[in-house]
Amino acid sequence: MTRRAVPGQVGERPNEPSIFERRESVVRSYCRRLDCVLDTAEGSLVRDITGREYLDFVAGAGSLNYGHNDPDMRAALIAHLEHGGISHSLDMFSSAKGAFLTTFESLVLLPRGMDYRVQFTGPTGANAVEAALKLARKVTGRTNVIAFTNGFHGMSQGALAVTGNRYHRGGPQNPLYGVTRMPYDGYLGDSVDTADLLDRMLHDPSSGLDAPAAILLETVQGEGGLNVASPAWLRRIAELARTSGALLVVDDVQAGCGRTGTFFSFEPFDIVPDLVVLAKSISGYGLPMALLLIRPEYDVWLPGEHNGTFRGNVHAFVTARVALEKFWSTVDFTADVARRSQLLARRLAEVGALVPGTSVKGRGMMCGIDVGSGRHADTVVRGCFAEGLMLETAGSYDQVVKLLPPLTTPDKVLHEGLDILLSVIRAAASGREWRSSSGPVIA
Amino acid sequence: MTRRAVPGQVGERPNEPSIFERRESVVRSYCRRLDCVLDTAEGSLVRDITGREYLDFVAGAGSLNYGHNDPDMRAALIAHLEHGGISHSLDMFSSAKGAFLTTFESLVLLPRGMDYRVQFTGPTGANAVEAALKLARKVTGRTNVIAFTNGFHGMSQGALAVTGNRYHRGGPQNPLYGVTRMPYDGYLGDSVDTADLLDRMLHDPSSGLDAPAAILLETVQGEGGLNVASPAWLRRIAELARTSGALLVVDDVQAGCGRTGTFFSFEPFDIVPDLVVLAKSISGYGLPMALLLIRPEYDVWLPGEHNGTFRGNVHAFVTARVALEKFWSTVDFTADVARRSQLLARRLAEVGALVPGTSVKGRGMMCGIDVGSGRHADTVVRGCFAEGLMLETAGSYDQVVKLLPPLTTPDKVLHEGLDILLSVIRAAASGREWRSSSGPVIA
Amino acid sequence: MTRRAVPGQVGERPNEPSIFERRESVVRSYCRRLDCVLDTAEGSLVRDITGREYLDFVAGAGSLNYGHNDPDMRAALIAHLEHGGISHSLDMFSSAKGAFLTTFESLVLLPRGMDYRVQFTGPTGANAVEAALKLARKVTGRTNVIAFTNGFHGMSQGALAVTGNRYHRGGPQNPLYGVTRMPYDGYLGDSVDTADLLDRMLHDPSSGLDAPAAILLETVQGEGGLNVASPAWLRRIAELARTSGALLVVDDVQAGCGRTGTFFSFEPFDIVPDLVVLAKSISGYGLPMALLLIRPEYDVWLPGEHNGTFRGNVHAFVTARVALEKFWSTVDFTADVARRSQLLARRLAEVGALVPGTSVKGRGMMCGIDVGSGRHADTVVRGCFAEGLMLETAGSYDQVVKLLPPLTTPDKVLHEGLDILLSVIRAAASGREWRSSSGPVIA
Amino acid sequence: MTRRAVPGQVGERPNEPSIFERRESVVRSYCRRLDCVLDTAEGSLVRDITGREYLDFVAGAGSLNYGHNDPDMRAALIAHLEHGGISHSLDMFSSAKGAFLTTFESLVLLPRGMDYRVQFTGPTGANAVEAALKLARKVTGRTNVIAFTNGFHGMSQGALAVTGNRYHRGGPQNPLYGVTRMPYDGYLGDSVDTADLLDRMLHDPSSGLDAPAAILLETVQGEGGLNVASPAWLRRIAELARTSGALLVVDDVQAGCGRTGTFFSFEPFDIVPDLVVLAKSISGYGLPMALLLIRPEYDVWLPGEHNGTFRGNVHAFVTARVALEKFWSTVDFTADVARRSQLLARRLAEVGALVPGTSVKGRGMMCGIDVGSGRHADTVVRGCFAEGLMLETAGSYDQVVKLLPPLTTPDKVLHEGLDILLSVIRAAASGREWRSSSGPVIA
Repeated sequence: MTRRAVPGQVGERPNEPSIFERRESVVRSYCRRLDCVLDTAEGSLVRDITGREYLDFVAGAGSLNYGHNDPDMRAALIAHLEHGGISHSLDMFSSAKGAFLTTFESLVLLPRGMDYRVQFTGPTGANAVEAALKLARKVTGRTNVIAFTNGFHGMSQGALAVTGNRYHRGGPQNPLYGVTRMPYDGYLGDSVDTADLLDRMLHDPSSGLDAPAAILLETVQGEGGLNVASPAWLRRIAELARTSGALLVVDDVQAGCGRTGTFFSFEPFDIVPDLVVLAKSISGYGLPMALLLIRPEYDVWLPGEHNGTFRGNVHAFVTARVALEKFWSTVDFTADVARRSQLLARRLAEVGALVPGTSVKGRGMMCGIDVGSGRHADTVVRGCFAEGLMLETAGSYDQVVKLLPPLTTPDKVLHEGLDILLSVIRAAASGREWRSSSGPVIA
Repeated sequence: MTRRAVPGQVGERPNEPSIFERRESVVRSYCRRLDCVLDTAEGSLVRDITGREYLDFVAGAGSLNYGHNDPDMRAALIAHLEHGGISHSLDMFSSAKGAFLTTFESLVLLPRGMDYRVQFTGPTGANAVEAALKLARKVTGRTNVIAFTNGFHGMSQGALAVTGNRYHRGGPQNPLYGVTRMPYDGYLGDSVDTADLLDRMLHDPSSGLDAPAAILLETVQGEGGLNVASPAWLRRIAELARTSGALLVVDDVQAGCGRTGTFFSFEPFDIVPDLVVLAKSISGYGLPMALLLIRPEYDVWLPGEHNGTFRGNVHAFVTARVALEKFWSTVDFTADVARRSQLLARRLAEVGALVPGTSVKGRGMMCGIDVGSGRHADTVVRGCFAEGLMLETAGSYDQVVKLLPPLTTPDKVLHEGLDILLSVIRAAASGREWRSSSGPVIA
Repeated sequence: MTRRAVPGQVGERPNEPSIFERRESVVRSYCRRLDCVLDTAEGSLVRDITGREYLDFVAGAGSLNYGHNDPDMRAALIAHLEHGGISHSLDMFSSAKGAFLTTFESLVLLPRGMDYRVQFTGPTGANAVEAALKLARKVTGRTNVIAFTNGFHGMSQGALAVTGNRYHRGGPQNPLYGVTRMPYDGYLGDSVDTADLLDRMLHDPSSGLDAPAAILLETVQGEGGLNVASPAWLRRIAELARTSGALLVVDDVQAGCGRTGTFFSFEPFDIVPDLVVLAKSISGYGLPMALLLIRPEYDVWLPGEHNGTFRGNVHAFVTARVALEKFWSTVDFTADVARRSQLLARRLAEVGALVPGTSVKGRGMMCGIDVGSGRHADTVVRGCFAEGLMLETAGSYDQVVKLLPPLTTPDKVLHEGLDILLSVIRAAASGREWRSSSGPVIA
Repeated sequence: MTRRAVPGQVGERPNEPSIFERRESVVRSYCRRLDCVLDTAEGSLVRDITGREYLDFVAGAGSLNYGHNDPDMRAALIAHLEHGGISHSLDMFSSAKGAFLTTFESLVLLPRGMDYRVQFTGPTGANAVEAALKLARKVTGRTNVIAFTNGFHGMSQGALAVTGNRYHRGGPQNPLYGVTRMPYDGYLGDSVDTADLLDRMLHDPSSGLDAPAAILLETVQGEGGLNVASPAWLRRIAELARTSGALLVVDDVQAGCGRTGTFFSFEPFDIVPDLVVLAKSISGYGLPMALLLIRPEYDVWLPGEHNGTFRGNVHAFVTARVALEKFWSTVDFTADVARRSQLLARRLAEVGALVPGTSVKGRGMMCGIDVGSGRHADTVVRGCFAEGLMLETAGSYDQVVKLLPPLTTPDKVLHEGLDILLSVIRAAASGREWRSSSGPVIA
């Protein structure tokens, strides 16, 4: 590792390891490619300690759907702080939690005809996934959980068991059991409906598939490579859950909170999950918060049976309420997201048309372009970063350049970002190294 | 369930279920006994929406060692907000993270001659425990983890596997494997050194104990009933970890950050854990944050091998830095905590002397009184709440009334709280129901 | 249960429960449908204590490929007994074991150009499967084992984990882990090559498929319903094992020892398994015996690392040697089996043609007819038993009437059996109950 | 490895690897120390192919309690063979099975006032242990099984999970779950009653001990080192099983069938196990056979829910019946075993007195001498083999020289064997190497 001083840090000297190199675990990752020290942020812009600005099309991996430091949420949070509002309340009642729940009920649940109980789990998606699986096992008395190829649900042991990525799973010494993996929609190409396999195995008593407690899925697999499930497949899986006595669990951590155009990613498809996991953008302001939505008949927890210290992050309740009020009271925001989704699709199609061997992926404002290999994608992301655009990658081979701009990004700024991407990818694709790889490269 | 309106909530009417009853999962627990709607807080006081004040000797289950809404942390956080400081940065570098690390290095690590790398895990203790166990398994290539009776480490599947509480574990359908349970210090009374069993089983190749990746312990078991490990036992366990090739992992989530009198609970005992888990009070302000400290030789993660969305809770970095600067720059705070610990011990001994069948538990400012049964403890906690003192319970049967006041609680306020406790317990113990139970009651 | 006396048992009186009803566990099963008390047997005939004779087309579920009480094996066993030959020798060397190994080498391994080491495991197929999986895990350092839908490998925990049948698996309280289930050849119909899924998932690092220690399969699934894998599929799976670093394990317990026409069922397909499991007919005489064949480079056991009391069933070594000498010294037996296989196929095709909705299954002399429902198959088996023909059923719904006659069954006797089957099935199929079910009935 | 020809084997030439070296897996073990090729046997004598005779105090690891080739059992088996008696009958009724059950009922169960159902499992102890654990889990709906340090129950995955020996367990890649290990009687010396720990952990809801389906134990741990449980401890464990809702399972595979003086090893202690596992000597003649005895109220299997090909080893039924009739019809055999047990104890005490640092172990006719190290024990066993006495070793370090002579061994022959042992151990103990090790050597 080359030693690099971080300018402006107190006590750092050139040619000495930075405080991060000295003290932060080597597990750190985003910072390796997006190598700057962030300081301030506003909307879709972030600024590092040298004053350099970047368009942020990573948006906290989907945690900042409303952009950085929304002024209304900030004002409410400052008011809460100045008022002496409590910040941490375990799972006790608080005025801020009550206000959030009231708003969530009136702006999210009632307009959609949904009846869910809300469990405030530990404030990460993984915590909520863990709660969902434990609850489904309790409700059904079964162990097995169906999860899908390329699914991503978190790092704690239960969430990791349903996550597909071998890089994270930890090898044979890390016990990850109780899960059956099924091929996601499209995994075997267009000619095979992968739901056939699940259907057959669920109904065949000798298939080796133990009766499932839950079927867990993302409607769009974000980390998995922006793979999109079709409405027909989703409906069929939902029906298979119902007929097999399994709970249908939708992990809407990344695809929810408007990312695909509706508050919940599954709204357009006429399915009603038994459990829904929300996290990332639910607080609106990037603060840690996660929810498990539970159909009332399955809310069979005993008091405190599943608990945790940070279930009551009051600051997050405050900003989450403002986020709902500001963006989900009218249809304006939905219309904006729809328009911006089309804008992104159109501009990405340009890229796709420009560079042979690439393909456009995703739905709504979680979209991107498969450039055929992780090496290509890395070249593109590094090139964009040099030009002031932050992006990340996804997919089994990190071969998908992924765009998760804030949903509030002005159209003009979206165009700026796409312009950078287009120019970088065009330049890269004309390079010798890129062209020497014929067809998709899997590295 | 009796329907109870929460006064003062918008849209609530008497005799209708409150928003919490309507929408929050029945898993909620603290709020059942400490039944009020919290609004504001300051130091060791919390205030509900009716204006009623309580002494808070729960302190976010140990997350508020510096009290509620410390003015200096609040000021720093407001300044950060007003400055447009970034709030969420994944695991990218940020100025606030750099400042925290620099402060942690200079005020915590260097003065203690400690050399650790810092992993920012998902912001809960459970997330950090998960990371610790996965890393220990990776380092050693072994699966088995030694955990102790009455240990409590969190709710996610890996953390739950090392947690002793059957109420939380989830029954046979919830796979919890890869852990061997050993008796904690004192589990079989004073005449048996429980380390003998671990020693024997580790060295006997036919004991059935698979070679351990880690030995995980709390130096004081908070949830487990304020059980205190002796220095000799801790040193022996540390030595057994060393000789058996296991990593010694100390879960200092509740006992750390000054709770027992020193920053780390194990400082007085001349042991050096390989991994240390911190959470709860590390942010200082009750904001979600967790750390895993890793001896450099074991920091063998691959980049991003263990990740998570909320590793970069920048607000928590801001307050955590201020907390360290304010309380750990001089020895004044340590002296205060030592004095208050003695005060608590002295006053609890009064209670112990007063009521037959009770015994004082704990160390430093995590202490309490075993009143012999969960029913008795519940009576005491409810009685104190009625008198304006918030407490919780711990132990296998919830038979221990537990005191976790902020470490900053003025001596006078500690006395006020203890006065309430003393008077409530005296009254309860003279009641017929209490006295009809001869000796400890296990319910 | 109706109480039924077994005629001829000492001490049994009419209308009292038989000794079996009094003392044998209700787990007993074959005896329920094939309800008689067997006494003597010869070739393909068995005789009960009342003197009634049956054609035995069950043949010990494939353990009596050479028929009952072969006179040469019997003579050798009696000679061994009269000579005072040792009967039990743990895993010590014995003259009988040496003679068996010498014969196995010269008549089985050398003519086929095979180089295997022989492990004498506990004397059941399940014991040998357990040894195979443990060895594959040791060799590779991996946990996961690929097994297939409808596979059947035994009842012990490791063997059960790879077995598909839910009826046997034991529910969520019986831990069965470390196995990934894949669809067997043809599981999704002719248009889907199920090897595509395994191929894709093995090579996709984010598929959720942990790197496999072994791929375990039967070339014909006996209990699973006489499902036959195609040569192309088998070769592809073998290649996938090789390229993914997994050991290819063929469970030839039922399909081996000549049952499909060659000594090993995989001989015609040009694949070389790394491990081969043999049991059932290897002793020739129905005596418990099982083998694991190991390619020399994988014979990495430590001495006694996997052991067992009955690895040295000397009586079985004696008869096993005679069986090899008698049936595998020349090509005559192979020719007989080929001719009889065709005979069976031809006659079963008659049945298939006769009864709509049925289909012929299997390969070689493990074959049968899928009659569409377990109820139909039960009717057929009970009808045949009444006519003096013993059969069993197989398949997910026990919907396949299964024929496993001794390979030595004279052609004439095969015809007799088939005549009975044909007449019974014709009569049954013309009944009202059968015809009221349109199409295959799954019960 | 030195290449050694086995004289007298067909086709073997000096200086070439024997057929065993060429073809038998390196997993073979007994044959390494007891290096001869066995041919014939009678009573307590075995003879190798060179005509050399040995006293057999290994007795098939306890499978030959009635000696080799008992003439009455042999005659019955030859008669069965000559009569054309069926040899293999799956789990169908057979006259031989009926006769065995009738005899077992009248000579074993009724005289002892026992009411058990008999399950014929696969014919090894491990198979029967697997059935026992699966049944206990089914009955209770619980997963966890309590097993003890140094317990040995077999090699299949479920049986291995309850086995203590790390050498056999297979490392982290071999999943062995669902078991909690407790210290056996005496494991922590005389001053600690290890039942206290089980008692405490069973009743403490926060101990981390999941509610057990079964408590599984041997009354004398054969492989574990001839450790003897006291009557008081056994009764306490039985009571803990009862009060905690667990089934008490006694593995009487090695200690049963008269080995400790009574038919069942637990008879003297006034405990009634819910399940009893028998194997090894139950067939009387060293033929593979195993039983699970089930209290009727727990015989809740579905038909065929747990099955296996070799449940009906008819030859074993024949010899097992004769064994019961011959040895258990009168009290003579019991008296003989009692006398011989005392003889062994007396003679072993001589050895113990002679050699400092040794101690006598065991109960009844499963006994031996702990010589302090595996190296010493190996020296003794090899020395005895050279003098014509076959012995094996046991214990965590193979430090116990173990005597399992046939129960029928004439007193005079027992003395002969003990004379050899005494002289060998005396000579060995006076050697320099032995004496250089002060105190027990753990290698």
